[in-house]
Amino acid sequence: MDGKTIGILGGGQLGRMLVEAAHRLNIKTIILDAPNSPAKQINALDSHIDGSFTDLDSITKLAKKCDVLTVEIEHVDVEALKTVSSQLNIPIYPLPETIKLIQDKFLQKKHLISHEVPVVESYSVEENTKENLLQIGDKIGFPFMLKSRTLAYDGRGNFVVKSQESIDEALKFLSNRPLYAEKWCPFTKELAVMVVRSIEGEVFSYPTVETIHQNNICHLVFAPAQINPSLSEKASIMAKNAVKSFPGCGIFGVEMFLLPNNELLINEIAPRPHNSGHYTIDACVTSQFEAHVRAVVGLPLPKNFTSLSTPSTNAIMLNVLGDVKETNKELEMCRKALETPNASVYLYGKSSKPSRKMGHINIISSSMDVAEAKLNYIMGETSGVSLPLEIKEKPLVGIIMGSDSDLPVMSVGANILKKFGVPFEVTIVSAHRTPHRMSKYAIEASERGLKCIIAGAGGAAHLPGMVAAMTPLPVIGVPVKGSSLDGVDSLHSIVQMPRGIPVATVAINNSTNAALLAVRILGAIDHKWLNEMNQYMINMESEVLNKVEKLELVGYENY
Amino acid sequence: MDGKTIGILGGGQLGRMLVEAAHRLNIKTIILDAPNSPAKQINALDSHIDGSFTDLDSITKLAKKCDVLTVEIEHVDVEALKTVSSQLNIPIYPLPETIKLIQDKFLQKKHLISHEVPVVESYSVEENTKENLLQIGDKIGFPFMLKSRTLAYDGRGNFVVKSQESIDEALKFLSNRPLYAEKWCPFTKELAVMVVRSIEGEVFSYPTVETIHQNNICHLVFAPAQINPSLSEKASIMAKNAVKSFPGCGIFGVEMFLLPNNELLINEIAPRPHNSGHYTIDACVTSQFEAHVRAVVGLPLPKNFTSLSTPSTNAIMLNVLGDVKETNKELEMCRKALETPNASVYLYGKSSKPSRKMGHINIISSSMDVAEAKLNYIMGETSGVSLPLEIKEKPLVGIIMGSDSDLPVMSVGANILKKFGVPFEVTIVSAHRTPHRMSKYAIEASERGLKCIIAGAGGAAHLPGMVAAMTPLPVIGVPVKGSSLDGVDSLHSIVQMPRGIPVATVAINNSTNAALLAVRILGAIDHKWLNEMNQYMINMESEVLNKVEKLELVGYENY
Repeated sequence: MDGKTIGILGGGQLGRMLVEAAHRLNIKTIILDAPNSPAKQINALDSHIDGSFTDLDSITKLAKKCDVLTVEIEHVDVEALKTVSSQLNIPIYPLPETIKLIQDKFLQKKHLISHEVPVVESYSVEENTKENLLQIGDKIGFPFMLKSRTLAYDGRGNFVVKSQESIDEALKFLSNRPLYAEKWCPFTKELAVMVVRSIEGEVFSYPTVETIHQNNICHLVFAPAQINPSLSEKASIMAKNAVKSFPGCGIFGVEMFLLPNNELLINEIAPRPHNSGHYTIDACVTSQFEAHVRAVVGLPLPKNFTSLSTPSTNAIMLNVLGDVKETNKELEMCRKALETPNASVYLYGKSSKPSRKMGHINIISSSMDVAEAKLNYIMGETSGVSLPLEIKEKPLVGIIMGSDSDLPVMSVGANILKKFGVPFEVTIVSAHRTPHRMSKYAIEASERGLKCIIAGAGGAAHLPGMVAAMTPLPVIGVPVKGSSLDGVDSLHSIVQMPRGIPVATVAINNSTNAALLAVRILGAIDHKWLNEMNQYMINMESEVLNKVEKLELVGYENY
Repeated sequence: MDGKTIGILGGGQLGRMLVEAAHRLNIKTIILDAPNSPAKQINALDSHIDGSFTDLDSITKLAKKCDVLTVEIEHVDVEALKTVSSQLNIPIYPLPETIKLIQDKFLQKKHLISHEVPVVESYSVEENTKENLLQIGDKIGFPFMLKSRTLAYDGRGNFVVKSQESIDEALKFLSNRPLYAEKWCPFTKELAVMVVRSIEGEVFSYPTVETIHQNNICHLVFAPAQINPSLSEKASIMAKNAVKSFPGCGIFGVEMFLLPNNELLINEIAPRPHNSGHYTIDACVTSQFEAHVRAVVGLPLPKNFTSLSTPSTNAIMLNVLGDVKETNKELEMCRKALETPNASVYLYGKSSKPSRKMGHINIISSSMDVAEAKLNYIMGETSGVSLPLEIKEKPLVGIIMGSDSDLPVMSVGANILKKFGVPFEVTIVSAHRTPHRMSKYAIEASERGLKCIIAGAGGAAHLPGMVAAMTPLPVIGVPVKGSSLDGVDSLHSIVQMPRGIPVATVAINNSTNAALLAVRILGAIDHKWLNEMNQYMINMESEVLNKVEKLELVGYENY
C-alpha cells in the first residue's frame, strides 16, 4: 500500500494473522523465527530470517531489510532491539521501553500504579527464601499467588501458595526465577479489552469482552461481555488509560478482573495482538491485526473502526487446542464448525500437540443465545442432537392479558402471529391482582429480547399503560369489551395516556390488528416482515375483489 | 483441515483470494502460473509450478503434487486437463467438459438454450465473410454484436456492428477468430448472481447484484441489486437453473441482462470465482472463495452460507484499476478508503499498469445511501468535502397531517423526535383534498426507508387509516381535537379500524406520545433508542420526585 516493509519478531499464529492483514493491503512483511513457522507459510514475498527473536544478529539482519519492526510476542531481547534501533535508526513499535516494562510483570504493575491504574496488590520478592514468603503470607494472607516476574504466559510461572505448608513446593516449582507475590483476587469474571494506539497518541478501544480460561489457557471469549453496559464502559476507559501510559503505537491486549463488588483491576497487558481479540476478525469493522498493521506503518484508522460490525453483533471465540489424547482429533470440532452457519474456522498450520493452540473458531450471531447453542453443537455438548438450526427462537412479541376471560379475544391475535411465523409468548399478567408480576414482566421484557408487547385489558384497563410505564418497548393496547359500556371504558382507559408514556391503541376487541401492528413493527428489524405484510394486504385485496366478482355475477339480490 | 492439496491453474487475484481462504482452513494449495504471480506471493508452503496453465507438462507436474485441481481462469487447455484427469485419476472441478462448453461462448449459449435457460438470440458465423455478416444483419437488424467465441474477456473480442458500413472494420478487428453474432440487447441493467454447486449437486445462490461496467471492465457492484425483490428472486432461480446444467462442483458467476420489460437473459457464465462476487468477502456469511475451496475438497457448506451477514447489509464493490496517466496514482483512492469506516481495501500485489485490475474496495453499510456517499468520497467525487460521515441521514419517521391547522398539535411530536436525534420529515397530506398524494406517500414510504409514519387528523380523520391501508409500515394515529365533539369523533375514527389494517392510536392531541412510540418502535432496529427511552423515563421519574421533595418541603398550601 505505501511501500513500507514490516519486520515481525516471531512467526506464530499472531504473526500469521498480521501477515494476512498486511497482504490484503499489499504491505510487505518479513518474519524472524524458526523455518516454516505459521507466519512464514503464508508469505513468499522475500527470504525470511531463520533464527531467534532473542538474538541480536538475527534482529539486525531483519532490521536491515525493513522500514519498521514490530513483535508478535513480548519475550524478545529488548537490549538487542535498542541497539538495532539506535544503530539503524529504525522505528520499533511497541517501543523497546514499553516491551521492557511489560516483560517484567512486577515493573508493569508498578508502572500502572504510578499512572493511577488500579491493579491487584503486589509485593516484590527480593530473594527467593522461605522467610520472605512467610512474611508476605502474614501480610496479605493465604492463599496468595506467587508469580514469575518474567517469561510467564498461559499460567506457566504462576503458583498458588495455599498455606505456609505449600511454600517449599512453591519455591521448588519457581526456583531461580525472579518472583513477586499477588494478593488473592477472588474475581467473578475475567474481562479483556483490545486497545489501539495511533502514532499521534490517540487510543481506541474495541468492545469489552469476557474471557473464560481452562487450565490457565484461554478457552472462550464472549464479545461483547454480557455485563452491565456501564461496567463495560468503565473497563474500556480503564484499558484506554492504561495504554495511554505507554508511548509509541500499535495494539495492546488488556486483561482485567471483575470483583464481586463490581470493582475492576487490571491483571496484565500484552503489547501486541491478543487471543482475546481474535473475534474482531469477524465481528468488528477492522480486525485487531489490520489495526496493528495500519498503526505501525502510519496508515489511516477511520472513525469507529473498533466497533462491532452492527449494533446487534454478538461473537464467541473458541480456541482450538490440540487434543490431549489423539493427534488431530481437534479437527472434528473444526468440521462441525464448518457445518455451522456463521462460524468461521482459522487454523494456524501447526502440527498437532496436546493443548497447543492450533486455531480458533469465531461464531457470530445477532443473539448470544443462538451463538451459545452453536458453540454447544461445535463442542459436541449436544450429543445426539443435530445442528441447532431449529433452536427455539426467543419470543419477539409478548402477549399479555389481565385475565383468562380475555383469552378468547387475545388468542385471535396470537393465531395471526403464528400464521406469520413470529416467535411469541402468551401469558396472564394482571395489573390489579398481580402488580409485582406485572412490574417484573415489564422491566425484564426488553432484556429478554422482546421487541414489542401486546396487552389486552377490559374495564378500568390499566395493564397496557402500566406496562408501558415500566418498559422502553412499544406497547400495543387492546381494549376488551366488558359487560357494560360496550368497551368504550377500556378504550378510553387505554388510549388516553398522559404525555410521556404512549400506548399504541387498537380498536375494541381487535387483537388481530394488534398482532398485525406487531408484525409491522418487526419490519423495522427485518424487511422480510414487511414483505409478508405486503403479501397479506394483497391477499386481503384479492379476497374482496373475488367478492366483487361474485356480487356482480350473481347480483345483489342472490348474493 | 482435511489433508487434501488443491492445485490451482492460474495465479492471478482470484487464485490469490482462493489461497487466502484455503490458508485459514490450513488447506494446502499449489499454484501453476508465472513466477511471483499474486497467488504465489502469499503461499510459501511448497515449490509452486512455474509455467503456463495451458501447457500439458506443467499441468501434469501440478497434478502429481495435488489431490484435486481447480482453475481461476477458464482459458486453460481442456484436452490437457482431460488427459491428466484420466492418466492420474485426479478430480478436476469445474469439470473439463464444463470448461470446454463455457470457453466457447456460442456453444455455451446453445447448451443453455437446450436447458431452457433464456439467453440473447445468437447466430453462428460459419465463415468470417462480409456476405455472412450482411445476411445476419438483414435477419437480426443493425446494430448487432459480433463476438469472438473464445478467449474474450473484459470486452476484448467484442465489436458493435453499427451498420452495413462497419462490417469491414469488424472483420478486420476480429480477423482469424471464431465468431458469432448476437442480436442487439438494449438492457436497462446488468445483474449477476454467484452460484455454488456442491459435489452432491445441490446449488446455492448468493444475492442478486447489479454490476456497472466502464469501458467493458467491471467498475462497480451493488449488493443486493436495488431492484424489485421478485425480480431478484427470478434472477436467482435462473442462475441456479443454469448452474444445475453443469455437473461437477464449485462456484460459478452468472452474468445477466435486465430488459425494459423486466425480462431477464443470461449473458454469460464463468466457471470460477468472479469479480461480481468480491463483495461476499465482507458482506456474506461465507465468501465466494471459501465456498469454492470447501466445495472442491468436499467440506461441509452450512445452511444459509450464501446469505448477507445481516438482513440489512448493503455492499458496494469498487474495482481499483491502474491509473491511466500516472503509475500508482490509484493508491490515492485506496488511502481514502482506509480513512472511510466500513471500507476494506484488497490489493493484489501486481505492478501498476493502466486499467489493470490492481485491487478492489468493499464498502459495507446498513444503508445503500450511506454506502454511496462513502463511495463518492473514496472516488474523489466530493472534492473539497470531507469524509461523508455527517451525511444527511434518511428520515426514519414521517410525520404527516391532514391540514396545516393540525401543525400546532403535531409539531410538539416533531420536537420530541428532534430531541431524541431521530431523523424525520414533516409534511401535509390530506386524505380528502389530496387523495393521490396520499396514496403516493403511503406506497413509497417503505421503499424510501421510513420505518414508521405518524399521521394526525381531526374530524372524520381518515388519514391514518387510509395510509395504513396502503403501506406495510406501522402507522401511529393522533386524533386532533376539532371545534366540536372534543376530539372523540377523531379518536373513534382513527382507533376503530376494521380487522386487517391496524392503526396505533394515541390519546387525543397527544403527538408527544406518538413520537415517543415511534422512538420505541425504532428500538427494534437499534438498541440505542431503547437506552435513550430508558433515560427519558428515568428523567421523567426524577422530575416528579423533585416535585415530591418540593411539595413535602414547602407543604401543599405553599406549593
